[in-house]
Amino acid sequence: MLGGACTYIALAASYFTRVNIVGVVGEDFAQRDYDFLAGRGSDLAGLERVKGKTFFWSGLYSADMNDRTTLRTDLNVFAGFEPKLPASYRSQPYLLLGNIQPELQRSVRAQMNGVRLVGGDTMNYWISDHRENLLKTIAEWDFLLINDSEARMLAGESNLRRAAEKILAMGPHTLVIKRGEYGAILFREDAHFIVPGYLLQQVFDPTGAGDCFAGGFIGYLAGQGVNPREGRIPHVDLRRAVIYGSVMGSFCCEKFGVDRFRTLTRAEVDERYQEFKACTEF
Amino acid sequence: MLGGACTYIALAASYFTRVNIVGVVGEDFAQRDYDFLAGRGSDLAGLERVKGKTFFWSGLYSADMNDRTTLRTDLNVFAGFEPKLPASYRSQPYLLLGNIQPELQRSVRAQMNGVRLVGGDTMNYWISDHRENLLKTIAEWDFLLINDSEARMLAGESNLRRAAEKILAMGPHTLVIKRGEYGAILFREDAHFIVPGYLLQQVFDPTGAGDCFAGGFIGYLAGQGVNPREGRIPHVDLRRAVIYGSVMGSFCCEKFGVDRFRTLTRAEVDERYQEFKACTEF
Repeated sequence: MLGGACTYIALAASYFTRVNIVGVVGEDFAQRDYDFLAGRGSDLAGLERVKGKTFFWSGLYSADMNDRTTLRTDLNVFAGFEPKLPASYRSQPYLLLGNIQPELQRSVRAQMNGVRLVGGDTMNYWISDHRENLLKTIAEWDFLLINDSEARMLAGESNLRRAAEKILAMGPHTLVIKRGEYGAILFREDAHFIVPGYLLQQVFDPTGAGDCFAGGFIGYLAGQGVNPREGRIPHVDLRRAVIYGSVMGSFCCEKFGVDRFRTLTRAEVDERYQEFKACTEF
Repeated sequence: MLGGACTYIALAASYFTRVNIVGVVGEDFAQRDYDFLAGRGSDLAGLERVKGKTFFWSGLYSADMNDRTTLRTDLNVFAGFEPKLPASYRSQPYLLLGNIQPELQRSVRAQMNGVRLVGGDTMNYWISDHRENLLKTIAEWDFLLINDSEARMLAGESNLRRAAEKILAMGPHTLVIKRGEYGAILFREDAHFIVPGYLLQQVFDPTGAGDCFAGGFIGYLAGQGVNPREGRIPHVDLRRAVIYGSVMGSFCCEKFGVDRFRTLTRAEVDERYQEFKACTEF
């Protein structure tokens, strides 16, 4: 079925802003999937279609949904991917770089003219086996989104607060550490913000939840028009972006794959934002 | 060194209210430990001293402090303990029952006249091997404090939200599920409240943190004079009690054993309460 980091990020962000997708698919990519993404307001000019099959992944989750085992990963057309931005994308103000080789993330960053806010995601493989390249890449970012075990690995430090200090010294002024069902922590030099995870009645499928978090986070900030080139982003905007990220991640888990986004409305998104407020304020 | 659930609970609660201790120690219990507890305003009339040695426990923590292995448990004088309340204790309005055989918790409850608010703690052994007795005991409680894995075990349900619903049907109108470094969740029929754990720079020794949470929770409610016999406790009071519980648990981890309570002041407690507000509001 339809999936992949880019898909989840674009769908989640689409509730807050228009999204310009950069990616690659094969000849097997279904017309209904193009239509679904376009119907959510995504610009698909940067979605290359090439000879071969689309990237494929399958996995098996543990009973408590906290661990998963990869059953199969076929890179297919993703193996030779060299992202090229359409001219219309290059002057966009906001850039989110999904998890891919750090060199490719850097090359996309370099194709942009006057981007205001840039950040992205990475994973354990790039941290352990491509460390120098990764450090060079994130040094140019405003924010880094990363999960807790990867933050510990990147910093070489098990205490999250000390790990965050070390990562903030690597370049990004803003760091979001994702903690799965336990929520997320936002770190900036001046303050940190902790949000617990939303308590779902049932976690149906957590695939893509972290990507939806990223989409909600950057989508909200883009929708607000924040401009860190003109001074620090107000901390309250970053906090709200973390909440919207959490909201989008929580919806993602409610149905299989991307299915929740076929019916989800902006009103439901805002209702859940209010629920977060109601169950955390004192 | 000085330890045990009763000690941690009494020390944490002593920042909010006077505490009447019920417990048993052996001939080896040091005068300086009596003096420390009495110096923090605890009434020791109910602390029995009998022939033999005091309960002893030692354990080894994993590097990330999230798991521990018991090295030694000597019940000693605790094995034959039958708690008897001094007359002066029986009319107290607030009762916290530490983790012990459910029958003993019930016998202490039965010795009280006109208690307003009663609750307590339990553990996996009583849930799995003394279930009927435990259910009879907690049916008489206003609140139950329990950790997440034990909540799942008690309810026979892995989803915390559904587990909480089942536990609230067993008697207690209020449930607090403790999640270690990830914080705690308060459940009542009308609403729930989630608080993340305090981000310590260093966790020196987590022993007793859950008990300090309990002490801060009941201590704050007692200090406020809440009276659920006259109507529901305001949710905001329960929420603040959970924060004060979290505050006391966080301080507990900063030094070895009970040492942090030798210097901790009420002003520091209130400062950390404000820190919780600052790093969770949006």
